[in-house]
Amino acid sequence: MSDENLIYLPLGGAGEVGMNMYLYGYGAKGSERYILVDVGIAFPDMETSPGVNLIFPDVTWLAERKDRIDGIFITHAHEDHIGGLGHLYEQLGAPIFARKFTAHIARMKMEEHGQDVDKITVVTSMPEQIAVGAFKVGFLPISHSIPESSALVIDTPCGRIIHSGDFKLDETPGVGDPFNREDWSSLGLVKALICDSTNVFNRLSGRSEETVKSPIKKLIRNSQGLVVATTFASNIARVRTLAEAGISEGRSVVVLGRAMHKMISAGQETGVLKDFPSTISAEEALDVPRQNLLLIVTGSQGERRAASAQLSNGKFKGFSLKEGDVFLFSSKTIPGNEVSVIRIINNLSEIGVDVIDDSMGDYHVSGHANRPDLEEMHKIVKPDFIIPMHGEHRMLREHCKLATENNIDSILATNGMVISISNNGLQVVDHVETGRVYQDGIIQVGAHDGVVRNRIKMALNGHVTVGVLIDENDEPMEDVWCELRGLPERGISLNDLSNVIEEEIEKTLPFLDQKLITEDKKLEEQLTRLVKRVCSNEIGKKPEVTILISRLA
Amino acid sequence: MSDENLIYLPLGGAGEVGMNMYLYGYGAKGSERYILVDVGIAFPDMETSPGVNLIFPDVTWLAERKDRIDGIFITHAHEDHIGGLGHLYEQLGAPIFARKFTAHIARMKMEEHGQDVDKITVVTSMPEQIAVGAFKVGFLPISHSIPESSALVIDTPCGRIIHSGDFKLDETPGVGDPFNREDWSSLGLVKALICDSTNVFNRLSGRSEETVKSPIKKLIRNSQGLVVATTFASNIARVRTLAEAGISEGRSVVVLGRAMHKMISAGQETGVLKDFPSTISAEEALDVPRQNLLLIVTGSQGERRAASAQLSNGKFKGFSLKEGDVFLFSSKTIPGNEVSVIRIINNLSEIGVDVIDDSMGDYHVSGHANRPDLEEMHKIVKPDFIIPMHGEHRMLREHCKLATENNIDSILATNGMVISISNNGLQVVDHVETGRVYQDGIIQVGAHDGVVRNRIKMALNGHVTVGVLIDENDEPMEDVWCELRGLPERGISLNDLSNVIEEEIEKTLPFLDQKLITEDKKLEEQLTRLVKRVCSNEIGKKPEVTILISRLA
Repeated sequence: MSDENLIYLPLGGAGEVGMNMYLYGYGAKGSERYILVDVGIAFPDMETSPGVNLIFPDVTWLAERKDRIDGIFITHAHEDHIGGLGHLYEQLGAPIFARKFTAHIARMKMEEHGQDVDKITVVTSMPEQIAVGAFKVGFLPISHSIPESSALVIDTPCGRIIHSGDFKLDETPGVGDPFNREDWSSLGLVKALICDSTNVFNRLSGRSEETVKSPIKKLIRNSQGLVVATTFASNIARVRTLAEAGISEGRSVVVLGRAMHKMISAGQETGVLKDFPSTISAEEALDVPRQNLLLIVTGSQGERRAASAQLSNGKFKGFSLKEGDVFLFSSKTIPGNEVSVIRIINNLSEIGVDVIDDSMGDYHVSGHANRPDLEEMHKIVKPDFIIPMHGEHRMLREHCKLATENNIDSILATNGMVISISNNGLQVVDHVETGRVYQDGIIQVGAHDGVVRNRIKMALNGHVTVGVLIDENDEPMEDVWCELRGLPERGISLNDLSNVIEEEIEKTLPFLDQKLITEDKKLEEQLTRLVKRVCSNEIGKKPEVTILISRLA
Repeated sequence: MSDENLIYLPLGGAGEVGMNMYLYGYGAKGSERYILVDVGIAFPDMETSPGVNLIFPDVTWLAERKDRIDGIFITHAHEDHIGGLGHLYEQLGAPIFARKFTAHIARMKMEEHGQDVDKITVVTSMPEQIAVGAFKVGFLPISHSIPESSALVIDTPCGRIIHSGDFKLDETPGVGDPFNREDWSSLGLVKALICDSTNVFNRLSGRSEETVKSPIKKLIRNSQGLVVATTFASNIARVRTLAEAGISEGRSVVVLGRAMHKMISAGQETGVLKDFPSTISAEEALDVPRQNLLLIVTGSQGERRAASAQLSNGKFKGFSLKEGDVFLFSSKTIPGNEVSVIRIINNLSEIGVDVIDDSMGDYHVSGHANRPDLEEMHKIVKPDFIIPMHGEHRMLREHCKLATENNIDSILATNGMVISISNNGLQVVDHVETGRVYQDGIIQVGAHDGVVRNRIKMALNGHVTVGVLIDENDEPMEDVWCELRGLPERGISLNDLSNVIEEEIEKTLPFLDQKLITEDKKLEEQLTRLVKRVCSNEIGKKPEVTILISRLA
């Protein structure tokens, strides 16, 4: 028997929602050749990653094996699958393969980071297959909420692997390829299905994009004023559903928000969105009566600078909302964004705008397969094994349970677990280090570098700066200086807190051991403790402390 | 006609969920005598109030009119109605009236803050009415999720006002008084109903607490391992439902979490919870086989230090969870807490615990009236006017719409709006300043004082401290010192960022205008700009900056 083996290794997206990145390898242990599927990002939140712009998978391990990557395959153009391509390409540097529309977006991502767009090869869907190393990879159309979303058919010496990508079973998805049961039923023997798990907890069958059309039209028809609708910019299916509903109800359609314009143009330029309804510009719209307008805008997740938030705060691009207008959230709020979204809704309510959210499920359907649809997929593909991906730990775990119910072997594989796929079954054969990298301004910092942790600590505890002068004879000078930030001015003594700290330090310094005075680190520790104690007494908080020691010596 | 008038003035809870505080006044304008209903708190979140312990209504306006408050009435013992009593009593200082159980909790709140518990008078429910000033106030039992929850029947010279308190229409609420349609139907002429709006967007009729009993029992019955259930400590109805289900399925019940113990004891001591099932201590439980145990624990909102979070991280009070155990969230996640709750669920999933949350609605019912129930309440009470309270702006607005549908006049009154209630209708007659006060450690700070805003800025941008020495001749000395916090060590130049800042400042200082050097404020501004510019170039962020200038002169 050969010692070549087939491995699957998730580097992002398995144990979380977001930053999808999956590696397949074939070869002798330690010298496998790889193909990489998707290079996605995740989004930060105030609770765990304040001030961070984007989150990537940590590719340190893979970058050290860069020369063994034979190809990068992008399943579709959603940010959690393609958003990291430009940022991380330097570390990956292999040929990129994608279908036309996805490749178009990939090109933009590469250009933004000065990467060589010629690394991208546009491919067609199955039956074309790209041979890279021991693999042959084909793009198998699957319905989702963006054009040309694809599963990957990965033929390996150990058999056929299906990497589902993001999918739902929708025969009328609006944009992108409808689910084609026939194609999917004729895949032959499938060794393993690596499968989207996002909606495994939803026990109802998924609904088609088609089902939201009529409620949206009706909503627009019954509205007397301006209608504004928001959704994810990259949910092109929904943007189109909204635009068509607007036109069919006799309204002119305006698209607001850079990300949305980009996506639509990409669709039009690549010909996958040829029949997108015609829209008018914001300037043109200002001459149209408000009851004849539909605005489709970005910011469905409450993003502070996006069109939705701006409109809720007053004016945006010449538009201002008023009593009797309608604002539709044709989207689901992602956990962590609720407070921001609710803030916008209440701001709109204060203006007198009627806000329609998705609480009743009439105006939004998910782009992911629900539990019964996953089950159907299992039955259509009939794989020997299932490996759940694209989901939090609880989702992967539940998906394994579902596989077990259907008598299919599965394994719960989270980021960093190296899974061998063979006739003998699925087996964890190794662990590699994975993690998260934060794009913080223009710098990348590790999630565990402490940078963001220190920011969170300052947010919770406030910050005190103390300046101490030590003279030429190693004697502390009298003038201690203290500055507070994010802390109350006065403590329970009602005295100015910075004065209290300064006085306490001035009182203490003359009595400190000379050895302490001469060593920055020890003096710093001592004074930090002192500041924390004073603050604990005065305000009941222990702030973060920076001690600046200046020596005249 | 007299110039006496009846006013309603929400000071908290109208335009938000939480910190309920409502004022009623009667008298000539400017010299009304008041009664205050509820003194609640709200809870902080990382996004808007990091590091804050609790949030109160700002009672500055009311405190200046303290001598005109004739009584404080507490409708029920939930934190958002009673939690601020001890903290704010100093500023309010009027007799407190509550039913037995609520008064018991009120006493604990007062004691914690060294306030005089004799200010609390225990009253019985209607027909008893307490005469305070021009008002006669009675406690009318209403079903909710805590014992002795009450609406207030407020008789005034202008007619009868009903202040609903928190309620649902539940004839089998588990604890507390069942909804008594007869009592509520015989209230006679009601001028105004001031009414809970929390669930106005829920279009289904509310379900009784009774309906969760059987699913919970079934869940416990089918579990092979340890079962843990969490809910709000103050949802005594649910705690009891859970405990009874455990006992009936042959399990010993353990309650973990201080807040929950407190609530149960209060119920038992006051006799309102006489038949609460007997529980065993955590120590005793360690001798019981895990499949014979039910733990009822705190932390349903993901609070870091509560029992749920601790159990999800490993051991707590000798218990550790393992594969096959079941963890039930018998609760709804409050917006803003999703990330924390999901973190716990995934931690539990990693241990192999089956987590059951409320996504299917089988194991939790709300304590608030849904839209059809609100409508029913409108029809039972038949008030001349409705004033929605207890809700975000969008909820109050929707509740007004519902009133209009039922042909009842209403007004959208948010915190600070003084509403006159008369035969002529509802009218906004004045605005008073309201707001939020943060309990931050042991100090109270205003939400707009900038303290917390500065903390948020540090969380987003990081912080740089720079120390500059100016000698006796007003010449800057060479040694500039810089410390970073919450920022990457190196920028795009790959040089140490603090070194780059120090060098830039050292290069700049000798060339600064002498006038700038001698004025702390100007020098500080100049150097802050410089630091921000350097950081913007090096790391793409503009941090918060503290400049410490030490003068040897």
